[in-house]
Amino acid sequence: MPPSLSKLNGLMRSTALSELARRTGEPAISWLIKLSLDRPKLISLAAGFTDNQSLPVAEAAELLHDVLKPGKRGQSALQYGSTAGDPQLRERTLKRIEKLDDRATGFTPENVIITHGSQQLLYMLTEALCNPGDIVLVEDPTYFVYLGILQSHGIKARAVRLAPNGLDINHLEQVLTQLKRSGELPRVKMLYQVTYFQNPTGWTSPHHRKAAALDLLRKYERAAAHPIYLLEDAAYRELRFAGDDEPSALAVRKHRDRVLYAGTYSKPFATGARVGFGILPEPLRTAVLRIKGNHDFGTANLLQQLLLRALETCKYEAHLADIHARYQRKARIMTAAIKSHFPSNVTRAEPRGGLYVWATLPAGKTSGVKSRLFRTALQRDVLYVPGELCHAEDPARRKPNGDMRISFGGAADADIPVGIARLGSILRDL
Amino acid sequence: MPPSLSKLNGLMRSTALSELARRTGEPAISWLIKLSLDRPKLISLAAGFTDNQSLPVAEAAELLHDVLKPGKRGQSALQYGSTAGDPQLRERTLKRIEKLDDRATGFTPENVIITHGSQQLLYMLTEALCNPGDIVLVEDPTYFVYLGILQSHGIKARAVRLAPNGLDINHLEQVLTQLKRSGELPRVKMLYQVTYFQNPTGWTSPHHRKAAALDLLRKYERAAAHPIYLLEDAAYRELRFAGDDEPSALAVRKHRDRVLYAGTYSKPFATGARVGFGILPEPLRTAVLRIKGNHDFGTANLLQQLLLRALETCKYEAHLADIHARYQRKARIMTAAIKSHFPSNVTRAEPRGGLYVWATLPAGKTSGVKSRLFRTALQRDVLYVPGELCHAEDPARRKPNGDMRISFGGAADADIPVGIARLGSILRDL
Repeated sequence: MPPSLSKLNGLMRSTALSELARRTGEPAISWLIKLSLDRPKLISLAAGFTDNQSLPVAEAAELLHDVLKPGKRGQSALQYGSTAGDPQLRERTLKRIEKLDDRATGFTPENVIITHGSQQLLYMLTEALCNPGDIVLVEDPTYFVYLGILQSHGIKARAVRLAPNGLDINHLEQVLTQLKRSGELPRVKMLYQVTYFQNPTGWTSPHHRKAAALDLLRKYERAAAHPIYLLEDAAYRELRFAGDDEPSALAVRKHRDRVLYAGTYSKPFATGARVGFGILPEPLRTAVLRIKGNHDFGTANLLQQLLLRALETCKYEAHLADIHARYQRKARIMTAAIKSHFPSNVTRAEPRGGLYVWATLPAGKTSGVKSRLFRTALQRDVLYVPGELCHAEDPARRKPNGDMRISFGGAADADIPVGIARLGSILRDL
Repeated sequence: MPPSLSKLNGLMRSTALSELARRTGEPAISWLIKLSLDRPKLISLAAGFTDNQSLPVAEAAELLHDVLKPGKRGQSALQYGSTAGDPQLRERTLKRIEKLDDRATGFTPENVIITHGSQQLLYMLTEALCNPGDIVLVEDPTYFVYLGILQSHGIKARAVRLAPNGLDINHLEQVLTQLKRSGELPRVKMLYQVTYFQNPTGWTSPHHRKAAALDLLRKYERAAAHPIYLLEDAAYRELRFAGDDEPSALAVRKHRDRVLYAGTYSKPFATGARVGFGILPEPLRTAVLRIKGNHDFGTANLLQQLLLRALETCKYEAHLADIHARYQRKARIMTAAIKSHFPSNVTRAEPRGGLYVWATLPAGKTSGVKSRLFRTALQRDVLYVPGELCHAEDPARRKPNGDMRISFGGAADADIPVGIARLGSILRDL
């Protein structure tokens, strides 16, 4: 933590600030971003940014020109919309989901809510379900910004083992059994999973594992005395460049009233146009809608109209094809560089989508912010996300500290092999 | 409340929902919006919408065409920005504020944070300061969505009398004295004021009243054992069409570390492009920034670039001149119609900005959702916001129920006299 922050943290303890504010830490990501800004020559393999070159500048200009035609359509794009979001966009969103999963049917546009990025939905769902002291089960590792949300709200995370082939269902059952035994099950509100090309590992949960997780959650509901939800964060679903799509948890028909699905149009189209969405059963849909009424009473309508127009004109689909080719190429560049430069005892899976490679050091070697690897990498102007940041605080296990999240999303094609070569040389020295 | 909602509320009580979700009610505004949608011929003098005809469709199209030029500027508009917001937009925002108030100096762009509408800032500041059971002082009446935020977080509101010439400072002192006496002062975190062309009354707080309020709050800080802030919601400040601007509370130099200033570009420019901002002292600036990291890690950059470009090209200023002329005309149409059609014992002030007229019925007559006035108005296809919705629950006084918020913002010019004539005829019958 930079020294100026400790003074500020002192100030924050001595004031009128709420418990929530006191619990809300400096996000790890801000610190990483500051590191990059301070070192202009640094090659960042840390940022979860999409590729600048991939952004649909000409397409967005043309689409907005259409949206902002004189008359009613243009005016309505610049006016407030409803809190739930544009009705046509909600309908199209549902159709897209149904097209992906022929079993994910039976929802209506009423189940859809448009949000300011899917991040806002994760926040509101957590507000809607959890009191301070409640428990959310998370993948181990998981999306680190979500851990920040939990910490901020005084919610405990319990880590469930994750492998390249999905969540460890036996471990999920162990965790639930232990929570039942300790009397903590009534505090368990949901399991949070990033199911496609996960942040940080890049791994995808197969459908049968999601179904098995839902079965288990349901089994423990009686002891919990209330529903236990699966929050499926599908943020990277549309960034698939190899293999087939897995059906979402929405396709598990018998448990569909326990699935909270979070999707987004921002990552696949343009991260500067934040438009996420949720598909939510009652009473969560109503709870989130009411909370959103207080947050902002609706996502900026102009952004919604941009995305709606992109979907209507199929420019969205065409852009997806472009970025799939681009990320596939970048992933290949990165994996080829890793093969050339990393010692063979550093393991990783082949990415089939998303933005990340998760590399695991041999036992005993560490990658954390205090490790020699991280500090040397920074000196040699290359940055990755230390895996430790992606693991929840969980008293049941020692926090793993031997992984790196390496992103092929934001860095330029030519920088990827240079950055990987630098990391490889440090790894060999260690 | 519509009958279908009571079933839903039952469902919400029987589930895993959080205390926050259980406290978060159906917003009054949703119910009013549903009423309008069900009656297509209804003239709504209720909505706080800006005038559709006033929206800068051609200007926004041109500005976005410039923003989305091929190359780096276009790409960066479609990429994530920083959580605090675009540095240039923050700098310009500060300069605009300094231009309005030559005493509101000494802040840096670090004090500025860009939000998804100023509503998001109100939410985050409340999260940053208040625990359940805390107390926020509000104007009586006040912005009803803010009352929803307080209710959702289990925060008590205490009402301070408001008059056309500003907050009743003597009453503020009485309220603070009572809270000190009852030992509740440590729970008081802030005073929330909508200081320009207030929603719902249209009244503006003169600068000396804000300074006096800050003096008083400071005086009671010792007994509270922490700072007590003034949250100045200046959402309507730029919608002034008569008279001079009042300096904001930021100009009270000796208390500037107690002022939380919330402004917005959406209402004056385009409500569909949600870009609000805060000017915040430490440690609130850091607390809100961290919370925003969890909400959405930054307001949609495309919207920020649109507003930045509008400010750079002076199209924003030119648009302000347009809408001032428009709202002045609409306010005149409304006040002329009120003079012709309302009984003379219904009182109101002359609007000098904003979107609202606050009309007060003679003693003994009621305007609430259950009143004959409101029900008859609905039957005759005209809608206003019952004043009772804008008053906090406060055990210290009976909730006033004899006012109407009548908006000249959203309704078409020709509809205003028709709607007012309908209301006037019902008022005369009563």
